[in-house]
Amino acid sequence: MRNYAPSPSLRGTTMDTVQVGKGLPALAVDVGGTNIKAGFVHENGEIEKVVILPTPPGKNKAPGVIDTIVELSDNLAESGRSARVGSVLIPGVVNDRKGIGVHSENLGWDNVPFADILTERLGYPVSVTHDVRGSGIAEYQLGYAHRFDNVVVLTIGTGIAGAIFINRQLIDGDGFAGEIGHIPVFGSNGPLCVCGQAGCLETVASAAAVAREYQRLSGIKVMGGKEVIDLALSGDTLAARIWDRATLGLAKCISQLCSIIAPEAILFAGGFSGAGDTLLNPVSEKLDSILTFQRRPEIGCSKLGAKAGLVGAALQTRTLAERLGL
Amino acid sequence: MRNYAPSPSLRGTTMDTVQVGKGLPALAVDVGGTNIKAGFVHENGEIEKVVILPTPPGKNKAPGVIDTIVELSDNLAESGRSARVGSVLIPGVVNDRKGIGVHSENLGWDNVPFADILTERLGYPVSVTHDVRGSGIAEYQLGYAHRFDNVVVLTIGTGIAGAIFINRQLIDGDGFAGEIGHIPVFGSNGPLCVCGQAGCLETVASAAAVAREYQRLSGIKVMGGKEVIDLALSGDTLAARIWDRATLGLAKCISQLCSIIAPEAILFAGGFSGAGDTLLNPVSEKLDSILTFQRRPEIGCSKLGAKAGLVGAALQTRTLAERLGL
Repeated sequence: MRNYAPSPSLRGTTMDTVQVGKGLPALAVDVGGTNIKAGFVHENGEIEKVVILPTPPGKNKAPGVIDTIVELSDNLAESGRSARVGSVLIPGVVNDRKGIGVHSENLGWDNVPFADILTERLGYPVSVTHDVRGSGIAEYQLGYAHRFDNVVVLTIGTGIAGAIFINRQLIDGDGFAGEIGHIPVFGSNGPLCVCGQAGCLETVASAAAVAREYQRLSGIKVMGGKEVIDLALSGDTLAARIWDRATLGLAKCISQLCSIIAPEAILFAGGFSGAGDTLLNPVSEKLDSILTFQRRPEIGCSKLGAKAGLVGAALQTRTLAERLGL
Repeated sequence: MRNYAPSPSLRGTTMDTVQVGKGLPALAVDVGGTNIKAGFVHENGEIEKVVILPTPPGKNKAPGVIDTIVELSDNLAESGRSARVGSVLIPGVVNDRKGIGVHSENLGWDNVPFADILTERLGYPVSVTHDVRGSGIAEYQLGYAHRFDNVVVLTIGTGIAGAIFINRQLIDGDGFAGEIGHIPVFGSNGPLCVCGQAGCLETVASAAAVAREYQRLSGIKVMGGKEVIDLALSGDTLAARIWDRATLGLAKCISQLCSIIAPEAILFAGGFSGAGDTLLNPVSEKLDSILTFQRRPEIGCSKLGAKAGLVGAALQTRTLAERLGL
């Protein structure tokens, strides 16, 4: 059986500054379940991080998200930064081609034509892309993923999903592929998921789930999943147990990807990717104990880290402008 | 949530006669865990089914398999049917490009260069391909699968594996992809699998597993999984319970494929595919009860049925001859 040592080169620190190609001034937005990150892409390709806002409350968050983006664009224009093209990444099931938010449990929407609505409200063309595929494209074009023909960029945030590259092509299953957070890893007795199934990876290993579980069992409020990792490192046994379960879930899920599509590498992106060895070591050890005949993928952290979404959105503004001949 | 009715067109009967293109007289062999099927491909493309032999006994079955194929070829030549090119399908992890049997638990081999050995022993060029990918290619070129851009041909026999087509391309993960039989569907308390893991789909839903489980619990010897299906249909409650568990396992596994690669269709091939509605109805019902937001694939049976392997091998002889300019 082959056994690859995790590549040290996939454990490097994240990039401080990232540039995309030259092009029109653009608005880049990454809508998450917890917050909305926005950046302004200058003509020279520099991405200026503008603001992080909390995702609006309410069951169906689509109207609030749209209003927030319109306000952001207006404020930027007032400060002399007028975008002429935009790209917004959103979570859930997304039809990238048509720019439709097909479904999001976490954000409570169904079949919202975001691209059309935003293009009209903002007065310039806007593309809408699945957040995780957008981040994955960034990692593939500017990060570590381009080294591999077959690689999964697995983003862990409020939810978990993956950008799957096979033979160097991103596969999207008409918007339905990559929902890796909804692989059941702890049988049907596991925690109930927002999707309606039980035991999904997302219920034990997302940043939100790790934080929620710690708060539920300890009664102590934490700021997010990263704080639980820090607690685990500092010797908190409850935090360590929750982190152990999260990394076991990730290893189980990766083993299934190995049996089905046999990627050469898995790169973690999103909030947890900054955890480095604290994430990679337990996942690698557990994966080694699960895999038998399967190909052992390299396991690493995304080069772009939590920035991947914004960089992906910035790249998408260049793609859109090119497609429209702007 | 969308809900596609299973397409009646995917429930048709299997083909009686199948032809591949014109070409050299050829030997086509499909090596399974239970038996070896061999056919002679005439110059006009007609596939003449020659013989079905039991797979040789012994821990490492590679030498016996090779000797059997050589004997077959010699016997054919004596009867005036001299092959000038050959193709052999084998199970396990297979490097199709190099014709190497990388690993097979069921047949007990590791890193056997079958293509090189057989080319030398037979005196004509022989390609070696993963059995399930070979069957999948046949179904894609001559069966129902070609209607879909994204489809999985799931072959159930001694083991279970799939040929995964994404954007009309067969993906092989350097030989490691498609090992769908080793997705755990009943948690780690499930039956131990030959692969070393527990609870794999293959341990509850392969034709061999269904037969084995019935024999174990009833003490009654059955000829194979199909006999258990017939018993279930005739009112045998034990057989019905085992079949129920097998189809639940298949539905669970398909739901995971839906979350990861979101195929438009799943086509069953191999021995069980002749079961038609007895297979399709329970799998479809269970899948409907599991899926929530995922795209519901069409579920059908392969057009080529149990013949897919031999047809796939016959097609591969044409591909090999073309590649070599013969």
